[in-house]
Amino acid sequence: MGSIQLTHHFRPVALEHASRLINHGPTVLVTSAAGDRRNVMAAAWSMPVEFTPPRIAVVIDKSTFTKELIAASGAFGLCLPGTALADLTYAVGNQSGRTVDKFTLHGIVARTGPVLGVPLIETGCAAWLECRLIREPHAEEAYDTCFAEVVAAAADERIFANGHWQFRDDNVELQTIHHLGGGNFVRAGGVLCAQP
Amino acid sequence: MGSIQLTHHFRPVALEHASRLINHGPTVLVTSAAGDRRNVMAAAWSMPVEFTPPRIAVVIDKSTFTKELIAASGAFGLCLPGTALADLTYAVGNQSGRTVDKFTLHGIVARTGPVLGVPLIETGCAAWLECRLIREPHAEEAYDTCFAEVVAAAADERIFANGHWQFRDDNVELQTIHHLGGGNFVRAGGVLCAQP
Repeated sequence: MGSIQLTHHFRPVALEHASRLINHGPTVLVTSAAGDRRNVMAAAWSMPVEFTPPRIAVVIDKSTFTKELIAASGAFGLCLPGTALADLTYAVGNQSGRTVDKFTLHGIVARTGPVLGVPLIETGCAAWLECRLIREPHAEEAYDTCFAEVVAAAADERIFANGHWQFRDDNVELQTIHHLGGGNFVRAGGVLCAQP
Repeated sequence: MGSIQLTHHFRPVALEHASRLINHGPTVLVTSAAGDRRNVMAAAWSMPVEFTPPRIAVVIDKSTFTKELIAASGAFGLCLPGTALADLTYAVGNQSGRTVDKFTLHGIVARTGPVLGVPLIETGCAAWLECRLIREPHAEEAYDTCFAEVVAAAADERIFANGHWQFRDDNVELQTIHHLGGGNFVRAGGVLCAQP
């Protein structure tokens, strides 16, 4: 993995822990770029599929501008918005990036992914995963499902540290959001520890 | 869809709303049966992939007894445990059903799915989806990912009604759980309404 230049509170996440970032089903922002175009959209449908190598699946409608950019570049990012970005998440999930640069429109600052150069969002996000598309034409066509390998990951140390999420009263703004539909999200809140 | 005999507070969920049951990334119990064998395991990795017809994907390791039963029957259930079942969810996720009937061991009462006859859990669960496997040998082999169509669904009306989740202070026990790893779950708690 190339050197990661991290801003503020972001720290690298070991690749063997990358699946934990989306294990609990957060809504994500999918970031992509190709040539001089870039885009960001919201996606509620993603999941890990393998721990090592870390692989994920995410549903991206084949008609979207994001899918076009991913097909061209073979790469994308999954950024995990905190509660403070719920409005933005809903907004970018309801407009196309074909005719407008949503980063510029919403004043979103993107950094460049360390391995593949994907635009990644840190401000207001809890974590990001930089992903290399594994081309699976049938799954993409039949189920809009894109498989990918995570090649770099980082998280805000105020909420994910030492390989573990830490949801606390003092980091509510960074807690992940989970879309119920229609702009209603639930926040990953109270922690339960199972007693085996 | 065949007639659904529902116990207690469970009511049918329209198939066009089925994706909403797992849209926010809850951990699920995967139920299955073939011949005179049955099983239940926990799975954190699932997602919708299509609204209509309602289709989902779930990661089920190819070495598991559950996968063996699903391959034989072509069917499985996704049951959504509430917070009251966190301990049970962790327990059934850490033992194999090859040598023990986990329903009997843990005193889990199963009802029979209305369309495919899959064992489904209602007590302590917020909802269930009865699913018909769509055989995709490559995705199952390469990514342990099983695609399926939802053929029936139901939810406890105290937490999902009129096609919408309703997380409130008075239904905490039924609120979905989201696995962080190692038996730590977050509860789908505070609701945020995005302001477009």
